[in-house]
Amino acid sequence: MLILVANLGSTSFKYKLFDLASNADTPPRVVGSGSADRIGQPESAWSATLGQHEEDGTLELPDHAAAAKLHLDLLERAGVIESINAIDAVGFKAVHGGPISGAVKVDDNVLDTMQRFADVAPAHNPPYIAAMRAFAKLLPDTPQVAAFETGYHQTIPKARQVYAIPHEWTEDLGIRRYGFHGASHRYIATRLAEIHPQAKRIVNLHLGGSCSITAIKDGQSVANSFGMTAQSGVFHNNRVGDFDTFALLKLFKADLDVDTIFQRLGKEGGLLGISGVSADIRDVHEAAEQGNDRAKLAVDAFVESCRHYLGAYLVALGGADAISFTGGIGQHDKIVRAAICQNLGFAGIKLDLDKNNTVTGKDEQRIEATDSQVAIWVLPTNEELIVARQTAEVLGRATH
Amino acid sequence: MLILVANLGSTSFKYKLFDLASNADTPPRVVGSGSADRIGQPESAWSATLGQHEEDGTLELPDHAAAAKLHLDLLERAGVIESINAIDAVGFKAVHGGPISGAVKVDDNVLDTMQRFADVAPAHNPPYIAAMRAFAKLLPDTPQVAAFETGYHQTIPKARQVYAIPHEWTEDLGIRRYGFHGASHRYIATRLAEIHPQAKRIVNLHLGGSCSITAIKDGQSVANSFGMTAQSGVFHNNRVGDFDTFALLKLFKADLDVDTIFQRLGKEGGLLGISGVSADIRDVHEAAEQGNDRAKLAVDAFVESCRHYLGAYLVALGGADAISFTGGIGQHDKIVRAAICQNLGFAGIKLDLDKNNTVTGKDEQRIEATDSQVAIWVLPTNEELIVARQTAEVLGRATH
Repeated sequence: MLILVANLGSTSFKYKLFDLASNADTPPRVVGSGSADRIGQPESAWSATLGQHEEDGTLELPDHAAAAKLHLDLLERAGVIESINAIDAVGFKAVHGGPISGAVKVDDNVLDTMQRFADVAPAHNPPYIAAMRAFAKLLPDTPQVAAFETGYHQTIPKARQVYAIPHEWTEDLGIRRYGFHGASHRYIATRLAEIHPQAKRIVNLHLGGSCSITAIKDGQSVANSFGMTAQSGVFHNNRVGDFDTFALLKLFKADLDVDTIFQRLGKEGGLLGISGVSADIRDVHEAAEQGNDRAKLAVDAFVESCRHYLGAYLVALGGADAISFTGGIGQHDKIVRAAICQNLGFAGIKLDLDKNNTVTGKDEQRIEATDSQVAIWVLPTNEELIVARQTAEVLGRATH
Repeated sequence: MLILVANLGSTSFKYKLFDLASNADTPPRVVGSGSADRIGQPESAWSATLGQHEEDGTLELPDHAAAAKLHLDLLERAGVIESINAIDAVGFKAVHGGPISGAVKVDDNVLDTMQRFADVAPAHNPPYIAAMRAFAKLLPDTPQVAAFETGYHQTIPKARQVYAIPHEWTEDLGIRRYGFHGASHRYIATRLAEIHPQAKRIVNLHLGGSCSITAIKDGQSVANSFGMTAQSGVFHNNRVGDFDTFALLKLFKADLDVDTIFQRLGKEGGLLGISGVSADIRDVHEAAEQGNDRAKLAVDAFVESCRHYLGAYLVALGGADAISFTGGIGQHDKIVRAAICQNLGFAGIKLDLDKNNTVTGKDEQRIEATDSQVAIWVLPTNEELIVARQTAEVLGRATH
């Protein structure tokens, strides 16, 4: 079964084309993948892996529809697929559907609801809506599935979902903690159930451009650091994370208009805001090593932000059997991993510094000390595979 | 040394008059205390303990100045003090001074700065400013000291102070985590250093109308659940606590005006907001027992809110030697204490349920199980004593 999984940013388009087998012996295969960035600007860079063959180039791509068309044409032309109509379904790693969660067939109601929640997911919902409309034109007979990032978190107990706000806001406006990064956390939970089935209580740290931490119990999400929106929780590369709502009153008083405040919190916060250097932690580390105090503060604060939720979730789970690191930072940043794991012997968590320093980040490896009671994994995530599987499932097809 | 400590709410006035001795053998004595509520309404109820003698009544008290004058007159008339000029100093448990923290003599600069931060401490700063001005008229020659609630938290490391916001907002507008409830947390830290000196790592839970949790290391605050304002952190009787800043966009869209939103978050949130029953947890428990689901949800969510910070601070401290409960709920709510301590064996914390059920809340008692590695204390707090001592200290007097 051929499923194209689309992963959208406000100016970027990425996809993977999966061939999912119906028998468990045949592993899923990626038969094509590609990306395009700077959509809407005069020159977009694109690249594609088409079977064994790689291509890249630059082109003007005015919108997400153009990017989708480019990649579908490339797939067809390279002979990866006979025709674009051979694609059985398109799956989207959609973000915020408010009351609509899980994986669902895309229809007008789904699109309308995503539009209603676009205000609180400004970087995510609009490009997905655009891409869904574009694919509907390019592949009018191919079903689309939205696998919402909130889906995996539907099992979070209500006492951890609600905010202490007038309750009609919760019920009528859908203001509650949703949790995001569901595809990644679900993948790690699924994968650890295969390779470490004894681990029933897991804290998974997905640390990348966006960061979130999930408490996993018996395979299910019971807490996630994101709240109502994907701006909250652990702070991100350029987004604010947790913030005191009443502090806004100081910003209003400083004569900043509301749009500017929220835009800056969403684009000039995070590692970039504190450091003033970069939203990329590698740059921030480099500046810190060269003596930049604000860069050092940004890294330290980021570690504190992660440890805050790690602690909260150790308590939520009554202790952990395993913790796992994934995402760009989680897989590749040994400094951050070591700092997060420091001084956690009370909870049975002890890192092996040598293993931490030599782990590849591309393989599935354990980095705890031999006397650690808790396993520490470094695991590559595979969000697209989860979306592909969910897409097949919604369409009533059993795949592996 | 006679020090009057004033504790103000927006429509309430409370005081204690301390006689602090200069030698360590004589314990501090409270020679008078009193309160008045519903200030500004046609009828205020007041009460006073004047030496051995108690009085109460009702009266129209148009403002905080009238309440202060009433109680000073009562002290003089009852002969507790020869004249109101016998009072050596007035200490205020002031809340938010932004950049001014610790204990300081009240002057125009202090008053102006408190005014500047009144927007983010709307329930607290205005009555303190009013009371300071009133006492300055009533006792023009008596020095005043403001002991800010943020003072004890000045030792919180910078990496736990900063928000991930554009850094100039931190530096220019003072938007950072301050921490509050300093007098209470300082009292518990001081008291535990006397009665349990082996405890170097303490998580103190001050749970009352306002709630906050502090991580104490070697007597100093290293983290507090309040952020920029006393509206954040663990949620409160009727205040929101932590909330997703971007969720406000949904409220703006719902055509609620900004003032209404913030007022409701500050007065109709917390236990009241979720339960819809009451801001008093005793009422909420009662409704929950009678099968009210929202009341049960409110209690469960409150416990989750507390456990969230307890976990974060166990990690911040690398484990605890003691945890302590204080404040109205902390001292008297066995249901909440038991729920907070559940399933924490991984961190060496085990409650003795019998001790928890029989503790008075008025004495200093331990309620951990015999095989608990961590002590669990129930301790009455004494914020006013801390303010009295700080006031004496600012005035250069050694007292006990």
